[in-house]
Amino acid sequence: MGSNLKDVAALAGVSVKTVSNVVNGYVHVSAATRERVQRAIDELGYRPNATARSLRSGRSGVLALAVPELGVPYFAELASLVVDAAAAHGYTVLIDQTAGAKDRELVVLGGIRHHLVDGVLFSPLALGVADLRRRTDSTPMVLLGERGLRGPTDHVGIDNIRAAREATRHLAERGCRRIAAIGVQSVGTGATARQRYAGYRKGLDDAGLDLDPALVLPAPRFHRAEGYAAMASLLELPDPPDGVFCFNDLLALGALRCLHTRGVPVPEQVALIGFDDAEESSYATPSLSTIAPDKAAIATTAVELLLSRIRAGEPPEAPRRVTAGYTLIARESSAR
Amino acid sequence: MGSNLKDVAALAGVSVKTVSNVVNGYVHVSAATRERVQRAIDELGYRPNATARSLRSGRSGVLALAVPELGVPYFAELASLVVDAAAAHGYTVLIDQTAGAKDRELVVLGGIRHHLVDGVLFSPLALGVADLRRRTDSTPMVLLGERGLRGPTDHVGIDNIRAAREATRHLAERGCRRIAAIGVQSVGTGATARQRYAGYRKGLDDAGLDLDPALVLPAPRFHRAEGYAAMASLLELPDPPDGVFCFNDLLALGALRCLHTRGVPVPEQVALIGFDDAEESSYATPSLSTIAPDKAAIATTAVELLLSRIRAGEPPEAPRRVTAGYTLIARESSAR
Repeated sequence: MGSNLKDVAALAGVSVKTVSNVVNGYVHVSAATRERVQRAIDELGYRPNATARSLRSGRSGVLALAVPELGVPYFAELASLVVDAAAAHGYTVLIDQTAGAKDRELVVLGGIRHHLVDGVLFSPLALGVADLRRRTDSTPMVLLGERGLRGPTDHVGIDNIRAAREATRHLAERGCRRIAAIGVQSVGTGATARQRYAGYRKGLDDAGLDLDPALVLPAPRFHRAEGYAAMASLLELPDPPDGVFCFNDLLALGALRCLHTRGVPVPEQVALIGFDDAEESSYATPSLSTIAPDKAAIATTAVELLLSRIRAGEPPEAPRRVTAGYTLIARESSAR
Repeated sequence: MGSNLKDVAALAGVSVKTVSNVVNGYVHVSAATRERVQRAIDELGYRPNATARSLRSGRSGVLALAVPELGVPYFAELASLVVDAAAAHGYTVLIDQTAGAKDRELVVLGGIRHHLVDGVLFSPLALGVADLRRRTDSTPMVLLGERGLRGPTDHVGIDNIRAAREATRHLAERGCRRIAAIGVQSVGTGATARQRYAGYRKGLDDAGLDLDPALVLPAPRFHRAEGYAAMASLLELPDPPDGVFCFNDLLALGALRCLHTRGVPVPEQVALIGFDDAEESSYATPSLSTIAPDKAAIATTAVELLLSRIRAGEPPEAPRRVTAGYTLIARESSAR
């Protein structure tokens, strides 16, 4: 090829410094200029020597996003939004799947896999505040997800307890008196599950309903199959529920399918609400009521927090916490 | 921190060379040894100098996977399987979303964004063979998806034409006589759509049915909303269809919801079949018949082909093409 920065600059009609800024993914280049430079790069087949470049600039232009599972629509949709938000700043996103396993999440914290990235966006399931405090890796990091993690790290999430409380109250307002919960998890995992369960209990209190432990079902993973199985158990109770709050939409979609198979009318006999607003929930039959976190706000805010950390360098300021919004979307599954 | 390769080797009880092999992601280290070394690395907080390492070894331990959209379950599920398959060989996967846009797919071909990766797995939507032939970037690449791309590149996919033909014949065997197709796309995009349409026509031929152009509907994107809208148009025809082959499951799930909203019984009045076997399809009401590509085989084969290219270095052998299997899964939506 033989093209160099000077050839690209000449063709694009900009300075060598500007080409270098584009190639290095700096954010203070206008979109129009970036595009002109990119076109010249494409035309000339110019390929920067990235390794040498990364030695010079100390930046790779790559962010890591570590999520439990792309097979869960919430994380796939969030990842998609993070990729777009990062691209708007000239960054590429490397996606790591942790399966929510503690050992794999610790590897993310340790930074071993992220020797090539400028910063880390991390949605942990199994880790606690103590794990975060023990982190020694200095790569800038922003957490996505649980507000409960009052650790040393920047954080963007929604108020899970308040949202779960509202979901439970919603079922009570629609006349449900025996409201079940599907999705509790054992101690040591599941900050999400813990918070949604806390919100469920508060919601019952608000409605003057007693907690019936028989109506609280675990789900080791938040998958459709677990929701189906839990709903099947609930239907075998001598006094089954008339409303079910599922801790995510997949659990609710599994429960919905179980109710259909058993011939139980939804919402007439059992009303349902989920959490996440996966796109499929609005297409389900009946369509699924849910809590819709503002995923776009979570993605863009998290990327912006991270980029500001990367630009600022060390030492970090105090951790920042941003609470994104959510809405309760009432659909057919609770329309009674 | 001050820990170095020697400290790690001493703690793990292996040679410095073995530690180096693990750190560099070489595949000929046993899983047990890899784990022992990784534990020592974690304990010592050892962090390899990746940039210097990558200058030495010429490898980054990172593969890129470029897919159109993680919001489409097929690609999310495939990405998840690719991440797992790569991890089994010590590789991390960087995921790029192209939105199926030609300009962004050309950037993937050009290699600009992949200065940090050892190889590229690429599922293109808009590119054709001519684009692939013009590629000058020498990073090893394997294509996922369309068998039609008889270009210069390694390729793993299923036989789309045969599978679509079978799906169409399945509806005819269940007694459908006016079989619609949802998902054709304009020329210049959509090798997938073109192949599934070709299979649809062959399937009609097999069943002795004539093609009725009024029953062939476009879908610029393979999303639920497009399937819903197309089904609504079909229901307004003077002579609506009694069977619909949707070119992916999301289109079919949108169509299914439209049929439910309009009070059309499925499968009694209209039978449906999709393509992809997204997990949600088996939980839909009624559950959705579909073509299930062997996604796990596609992911593992593609990663293995790519790693063998990376190990072999230049010059490449002739392009290899692997056809993965699929099965037709008959569920409630076509049970008549």
